[in-house]
Amino acid sequence: MAIELENVLPSEIEKRSFEIITEELTQNGIVLDPEKAPVIKRCIHTSADFDYAQNLVFSENAIARAKEAIRNGASIVTDTQMGRSGINKKRLAQYGGQVYCFMSDEDVAEKAKRDGTTRAVASMEKACELDEKLIFAIGNAPTALIHLYELIRAGKIKPELVIGVPVGFVNVIQSKELILELSDTPYIVARGRKGGSNIVACICNALLYNL
Amino acid sequence: MAIELENVLPSEIEKRSFEIITEELTQNGIVLDPEKAPVIKRCIHTSADFDYAQNLVFSENAIARAKEAIRNGASIVTDTQMGRSGINKKRLAQYGGQVYCFMSDEDVAEKAKRDGTTRAVASMEKACELDEKLIFAIGNAPTALIHLYELIRAGKIKPELVIGVPVGFVNVIQSKELILELSDTPYIVARGRKGGSNIVACICNALLYNL
Repeated sequence: MAIELENVLPSEIEKRSFEIITEELTQNGIVLDPEKAPVIKRCIHTSADFDYAQNLVFSENAIARAKEAIRNGASIVTDTQMGRSGINKKRLAQYGGQVYCFMSDEDVAEKAKRDGTTRAVASMEKACELDEKLIFAIGNAPTALIHLYELIRAGKIKPELVIGVPVGFVNVIQSKELILELSDTPYIVARGRKGGSNIVACICNALLYNL
Repeated sequence: MAIELENVLPSEIEKRSFEIITEELTQNGIVLDPEKAPVIKRCIHTSADFDYAQNLVFSENAIARAKEAIRNGASIVTDTQMGRSGINKKRLAQYGGQVYCFMSDEDVAEKAKRDGTTRAVASMEKACELDEKLIFAIGNAPTALIHLYELIRAGKIKPELVIGVPVGFVNVIQSKELILELSDTPYIVARGRKGGSNIVACICNALLYNL
């Protein structure tokens, strides 16, 4: 079998990829809301998984509010070093924000051990001490998302946006359903089991690239 | 609707997740080769995508050869900073290896521009200059995988293992089929469009955690 390569310039690969995604969505009768489309398509682009055309849930005006927060210098707190690595930090810095991930911090490890909880939970506690506008980008640990929900309900933190896309099999679905119950907090959530560090990073980037 | 959380100790979450994955594979009549199972299950664990039970292809003895290479101090070259971030570098270092990613190197960017190619291609060229045992872990750029194939065919490099799991829509499928044509190179390939930095990292970690 001869393997034939498609002749696409390096600089055109991403554009062509998004065209293919758009074509296949259309073929499957899926029409995306124009404001949400860049986020949804980038999730498909980063995973080659069309489930993201169905499982992403956005609170009303979530994208507009998130973009405004970024323009006003919001920082991003994530629970995954891989997510941190993937977020376009230069682009975010242009607006004054930075990316925090406390998961590998020694004080977080100590606190988690002391409290008998996860580092993810302890890292959410640490984020409460930050005195700035924050977007929470949870791509790994449902325990982080659950504790974030509790902190929001307790009035200890008021995120500009919660990106709730942990991945997995234990309390992942539930952690996301909790976020969907919040009425005053903008969110983008991938319902179900799917998500991950790649998804959390690409949602942040989709917002950054379409300001 | 009341949301009920499963009561699992933090330290038990990963174990419980793998149990659920095993149960669901069994329910679907999928029996995994015991040697490959840790790699396949970790891919499902990291993505919640059971497609990885079907799409991963292993050359004969790929896992045994990869583990031997790691034990003998092989390093890992990857085309993604997120992948680099996710690989357990401490564990790898115990055997003498390290993780290289040249994608952000200035000389790589310059060479790519000069040659009218991608940084991924230029970073594979740079890897040829390393004088050590190497595992290539390609999780993003099909152009990296295609060029790696060419370098192998030209006898310029002889990897201990090629992990071929770029993700996407342009030449991704083809790049993987090329690797499947290699007869003397051990490989682990995710056939089709799926893969990514999370998948490449978790395959490396599955090898490291089951030495």
